[in-house]
Amino acid sequence: MDYKKYLSADTGSFMRSPVREIFRKVDLNSIYSFAGGYPSAETFPLETIERLSAEVLHKYGAKALQYGATQGVPELREAISKRYDVPVENIQITTSSQQGIDVCTRVLVDPGDVVLTTNPTYLGALQSFKSYRAEVVGVDLAPSLEAARSRQRQIDDLLAEGRRIKFFYAIPDFQNPSGQTMTLAQRSELVALARKYDFLIVEDSPYRELRYEGEPVATIYSLAPERTLHLGSFSKIMAPGFRLGWIIGAPELLDQIYVCKQALDLCPPIMDQYMAAEFMAGGELDKNLAHTIELYRGKRDHLLGLLEKYMPAGVSWTHPEGGLFLFVTLPENFDTVALYDRALAAGVAYVAGSFFYVDGSHKNTMRLNFSFLDTERMEPGIKLLASLL
Amino acid sequence: MDYKKYLSADTGSFMRSPVREIFRKVDLNSIYSFAGGYPSAETFPLETIERLSAEVLHKYGAKALQYGATQGVPELREAISKRYDVPVENIQITTSSQQGIDVCTRVLVDPGDVVLTTNPTYLGALQSFKSYRAEVVGVDLAPSLEAARSRQRQIDDLLAEGRRIKFFYAIPDFQNPSGQTMTLAQRSELVALARKYDFLIVEDSPYRELRYEGEPVATIYSLAPERTLHLGSFSKIMAPGFRLGWIIGAPELLDQIYVCKQALDLCPPIMDQYMAAEFMAGGELDKNLAHTIELYRGKRDHLLGLLEKYMPAGVSWTHPEGGLFLFVTLPENFDTVALYDRALAAGVAYVAGSFFYVDGSHKNTMRLNFSFLDTERMEPGIKLLASLL
Repeated sequence: MDYKKYLSADTGSFMRSPVREIFRKVDLNSIYSFAGGYPSAETFPLETIERLSAEVLHKYGAKALQYGATQGVPELREAISKRYDVPVENIQITTSSQQGIDVCTRVLVDPGDVVLTTNPTYLGALQSFKSYRAEVVGVDLAPSLEAARSRQRQIDDLLAEGRRIKFFYAIPDFQNPSGQTMTLAQRSELVALARKYDFLIVEDSPYRELRYEGEPVATIYSLAPERTLHLGSFSKIMAPGFRLGWIIGAPELLDQIYVCKQALDLCPPIMDQYMAAEFMAGGELDKNLAHTIELYRGKRDHLLGLLEKYMPAGVSWTHPEGGLFLFVTLPENFDTVALYDRALAAGVAYVAGSFFYVDGSHKNTMRLNFSFLDTERMEPGIKLLASLL
Repeated sequence: MDYKKYLSADTGSFMRSPVREIFRKVDLNSIYSFAGGYPSAETFPLETIERLSAEVLHKYGAKALQYGATQGVPELREAISKRYDVPVENIQITTSSQQGIDVCTRVLVDPGDVVLTTNPTYLGALQSFKSYRAEVVGVDLAPSLEAARSRQRQIDDLLAEGRRIKFFYAIPDFQNPSGQTMTLAQRSELVALARKYDFLIVEDSPYRELRYEGEPVATIYSLAPERTLHLGSFSKIMAPGFRLGWIIGAPELLDQIYVCKQALDLCPPIMDQYMAAEFMAGGELDKNLAHTIELYRGKRDHLLGLLEKYMPAGVSWTHPEGGLFLFVTLPENFDTVALYDRALAAGVAYVAGSFFYVDGSHKNTMRLNFSFLDTERMEPGIKLLASLL
């Protein structure tokens, strides 16, 4: 039977995640994997979760297993409100931060609308934008005067063509995939652009709490709360298996997201939300975070040292102040997509950088993750990768 | 700030659930609630869940908290495969059965496409269909020759207008809201219609295992596996707080749903999936189900007896063989929407039947849920309701 005729037009723009396709085929533990954005299993608070699951069932009883409010359980919204100093009515719990991206896009974007984004950007966001047939336009946020002129021109041209720019998508802290952090000046300029051209900003912030050096920069939300939807996630500060995140934004926008979420999945998982609330309010999150930061700082430093030691001349990479990733640039003639099968066969995995570019360019780049692989397995992995270059 | 200009066209068709709006305002435990579709807290296997959460963390360790496959963890897909005798590759785990409805609609429906449904039908499904700007058309599946002719004409007219019919949405077992079950003849005729006019069928089946009398009727999926997407749910057989469901269907359709789900939320909650798998495979589900069926059968019988005892002449209701609901029809001149505020103020809640009708008609009907309210609180609730009529 030919099913094509039943499918919606959106499906024609669906994009398969090359990262997820890799994971379908390969057992990550059998290779040296710098691919994926998996947290280290060492950061998962297994004993705490076991204790909390019993505590939550005793404390909340049947409530922990019943349907709950679409906005999320009050206890979790309050814990987030306290930690990030935002009113409860500005908080919507999501069933994963990926759902946050998806529901924001759903509520804001019609086919043909423009979504601006840094280039490269998070693959899962590209998947979501394209699935709604947005026109995704990469913008260079480099702090040079030339880049500033070029992006103004780019936006002017889009508007002259009659395109509607709905929002700018940014991961300002330890970006996926580049590992780079936007300066306050860059954030301020982005806000100024948004105000001038009247578009919203979706600030995706899953890594913000994972800072290994330097001082935090103000969130974009704090600079422009009226036009920013700020997305948070429990995946990197608790455990991704819970599939919990949150959106902070103007109540008027959250109300649309709330109605949409009724039809999407009614409410986020309830027992998991209570566990996250207890994890946050009871101080366990901070304890676990301190341990995670120390672990990841060591891993980042180790990987940076290994790249220094093994990478041939002409290869450069970013020095992230936090997060899970760094980005490697090889000499121009390299093609990391073409190299990939050979690398995987040899037993080492990365994600080709071009997957993160809106136009699939920059074939000579790759993203390396340093959170997942055990520290002692990094050296043979990087040696192997360097030997292939 | 005026946010309207940023919103997508879909938001214009978003529909607020009147049921969820009731729950926002009222503590369900403070009134006699026949509203909602909440399972009884008595059916939640609290101790088993506590034991399983510890067991799953010991058995799977960090795997239970890590990201997982978009299709769902293999253990849960295998448990479903075994229980319902379908191949694993025909099973996609969803983050709630509501997500199942939503993602099927997303993958199949363009604005203006027709979705056929029984009338009345599940409100959450109407929300999802309308949010994608489907044209929802109610069809009378009554077994009379006249109804059969009328629905053929209805479909012929739609096709003559150049409309595309994408699927028929049905809840064949103990329907929400009517409580009615489609006979085998009705299911076969629906399949014949689908084959003749070449549309798909979405078979929503959250209540199927909750049968209190009579013999199970073959699923629509079993009659037409090639053109049916069958939706299952853990909400009524384990606990709704887990937000877990599944889709059974042709691998070609599931593949589109899989790619879509990557962008929706990457994967369903992991620890919850392992718990559901253990709950199923270890025989706990069957034990809990037996207890649930006994409890609900008693509640249904009790409610039927109370209606018999207290309802004035001219009021009729359905006699469901299973599920959570029955449907009450009052004399023509009654308006249950208008009556609602008075009922709530008096301390009794129901859902107005017209909310479940595609065209908002049948103002003289109401849905009564018999799973949630404690048996001993039913009598004062029904007395109160009857006194208002």
